[in-house]
Amino acid sequence: MTGSPLDFYFDFSSPYGYLAAEQIEALAKRHGRQVAWRPFLLGAVYKKIGGQPLVHQPLKGDYSLRDMQRSARELGLALRFPESFPFASVAACRAVFWRQAGDPTAAGDLVMALYRRAFAEGGDIASSEGVLAVAESLGIERAALERALQDPLVKEKTRAEVEAALERGVFGSPFIIVEDEPFWGADRLPVIERWLSRGGW
Amino acid sequence: MTGSPLDFYFDFSSPYGYLAAEQIEALAKRHGRQVAWRPFLLGAVYKKIGGQPLVHQPLKGDYSLRDMQRSARELGLALRFPESFPFASVAACRAVFWRQAGDPTAAGDLVMALYRRAFAEGGDIASSEGVLAVAESLGIERAALERALQDPLVKEKTRAEVEAALERGVFGSPFIIVEDEPFWGADRLPVIERWLSRGGW
Repeated sequence: MTGSPLDFYFDFSSPYGYLAAEQIEALAKRHGRQVAWRPFLLGAVYKKIGGQPLVHQPLKGDYSLRDMQRSARELGLALRFPESFPFASVAACRAVFWRQAGDPTAAGDLVMALYRRAFAEGGDIASSEGVLAVAESLGIERAALERALQDPLVKEKTRAEVEAALERGVFGSPFIIVEDEPFWGADRLPVIERWLSRGGW
Repeated sequence: MTGSPLDFYFDFSSPYGYLAAEQIEALAKRHGRQVAWRPFLLGAVYKKIGGQPLVHQPLKGDYSLRDMQRSARELGLALRFPESFPFASVAACRAVFWRQAGDPTAAGDLVMALYRRAFAEGGDIASSEGVLAVAESLGIERAALERALQDPLVKEKTRAEVEAALERGVFGSPFIIVEDEPFWGADRLPVIERWLSRGGW
């Protein structure tokens, strides 16, 4: 079975998004699919429907920190947190949308480099400087990206994509849409795998 | 590996609790474990830390209804909702604590009969009458349970158990504790299975 790309919605500040991102491309490939990388901003969701970052929630926050580390250990992945966390991820979003130039299946290398800088190394990707440093390590021209981060068209594209995600019902990270079927959470990856194998049920 | 019972915390009004309850006993048996059935009240959690029933939450509510049906279909289970849902589950809790008579691994048959009445048949287990009808179908003496549901000692036991659950950090349904390791959500059952197989990681 081949088909349209898997829509992978994520916030760069989401550790579960990172853990899922580390797995989604191999999963897609096993089913002849590509990944459409769709960064969005959880802050826009909280603004629209209320809520607050997972790790700030009583009880659930402590549990999730423990569960994230446990999940990472099982996957054999490093999980470190940036000094400031949760963090603003709008600069990282803009960098990705600019780099994709309209093709959401592009720039997977930039997405993964940003995510690993944040959660494998615990580095800063909230600041423009942090994003530029990651991009440079991939050979992306610094001056061009620096201009792009302030480009009104890139800002507008980012706003429009975040709005489109909300209109599609995305409310958490990661959030994967397979054709029109929504799956919320890193723990749904095995379900997505079975869904793709059987063509739904 | 054998060990202490798996602590299975659940609210009778939780569809994910029902879906997990249908699987937990077989899972425990595969690892030489028993299940300690620990009903509690999500309402007490919301009172303590805020929050509201999943299905009432914007976006997340619609998604979860869809995900519950999808999860049930994959498991080959019926999933119907009682006319009034979410519902008060304190009478069902009291019936279970009375029937267990202090042994939390007892009364699994009553737990499952109540859950199936609610979510396989869409029947009422919120009222005392609904709980009594389910119990009668198992041969439990109606008059004795009717008295128990109003017994101050049974009420006090229920309050104490709900409080103990909260103190242990339980905040959702289902919530499974393996020794001291907490797992939240029906989707964590495969993780628990691996955790038991390997003795943790």
